[in-house]
Amino acid sequence: MLVLYHMLLCPFARKVRVVLKEKGLDFEPMTEKVWKRRPEFLALNPAGEVPVLVDEDGAAIADSVAITEFLEERHPEPPLLGAEPAERAEVRRLVAWFDQKFQREVTRNLVDEKLDKRVLGLGQPSAAALRAGSANLHIHMGYIDYLAERRHWLAGEAYSLADIAAGAQLSCIDYLGDVPWKDHAAAKEWYARVKSRPSFRPILADHFPGVAPPRHYADPDF
Amino acid sequence: MLVLYHMLLCPFARKVRVVLKEKGLDFEPMTEKVWKRRPEFLALNPAGEVPVLVDEDGAAIADSVAITEFLEERHPEPPLLGAEPAERAEVRRLVAWFDQKFQREVTRNLVDEKLDKRVLGLGQPSAAALRAGSANLHIHMGYIDYLAERRHWLAGEAYSLADIAAGAQLSCIDYLGDVPWKDHAAAKEWYARVKSRPSFRPILADHFPGVAPPRHYADPDF
Repeated sequence: MLVLYHMLLCPFARKVRVVLKEKGLDFEPMTEKVWKRRPEFLALNPAGEVPVLVDEDGAAIADSVAITEFLEERHPEPPLLGAEPAERAEVRRLVAWFDQKFQREVTRNLVDEKLDKRVLGLGQPSAAALRAGSANLHIHMGYIDYLAERRHWLAGEAYSLADIAAGAQLSCIDYLGDVPWKDHAAAKEWYARVKSRPSFRPILADHFPGVAPPRHYADPDF
Repeated sequence: MLVLYHMLLCPFARKVRVVLKEKGLDFEPMTEKVWKRRPEFLALNPAGEVPVLVDEDGAAIADSVAITEFLEERHPEPPLLGAEPAERAEVRRLVAWFDQKFQREVTRNLVDEKLDKRVLGLGQPSAAALRAGSANLHIHMGYIDYLAERRHWLAGEAYSLADIAAGAQLSCIDYLGDVPWKDHAAAKEWYARVKSRPSFRPILADHFPGVAPPRHYADPDF
């Protein structure tokens, strides 16, 4: 069976977990405390980061983009990248947007400050980081509104890896109750459709020790 | 003709320029001063970053990974990702390593501090950032040595996008004379082979106003 090394509330691991479910692939999830830098884990991924997928033949695949492209090539159904090169380029542009820009501007400032610091005993979150994260989140929510008002899914008419990458990041922020849904109706309507997919159920059932999500977190009808 | 919006000493734009040359595709390079946030450029890429490729039909493709995957799909020869999914996963893992980990740990601390701050009039480079960049560079050079001692090219027996992504980052650091080549013989031998490819010649001919590269910079036999 496939094995996935992951961590709770890691948006990159969540992205891969959703893709595995969409493709109907069973896997054994293994929680990896990356800060312990276990030698056996570093042998699988010298970058020391999750997610890492271990294939049935024992080969390790690291990096969430490498993993999702690998899964798309090995298990093309259902397609999550689109058919035409230009369509696929738009999906990949948005995946990079959420994996990198949203992550750097929002997730790092909110989730890393509130949860990673707590887990690692690094003290209180920085007020400046939280303010920056909230301000940036409003801008990103506006961009999701813009896309959701013009397209059925974020990259076009078909559900794709762009929705999964965005949903994976947003679900981590939403766990902390930080998403201003009431100001972003189009984004909210899109996210309700994302949450009602069976592939999202396992990540919405995660429970981070000592931090309860808000009541609406796992509810598709919020 | 294809149009590529780029900036000098931007490793992501360099990666795309090399891929275009490897594929034998002519393009018109356009320098974009991204910090001016030109509305016409933001319409092409709302992230406001280079590289952006404008296709012959006028469609804009943003993000260096989206662009290189698009070029690989549209112009498969010569292949730069490998044939098998596992092989392609290893190329993509290393592309992510250099695009993200090397960029964050090395390039941002050295190139952004020394050149971006100068261009934008933001004052002197931070001594702490330069020290961190140099220390991290030694570790990354050790990893390139490790790969180059075991494989002909970084991801395996074939020249690939992994070599291009690594060469694009390193070429920017090398322009500033910051690479400790004498301590990393295997990496140096690999980089000499990268530099001797015709696809690298245009980027090695770049000249950043007011900053001359060291004598060995463009010399494949250094």
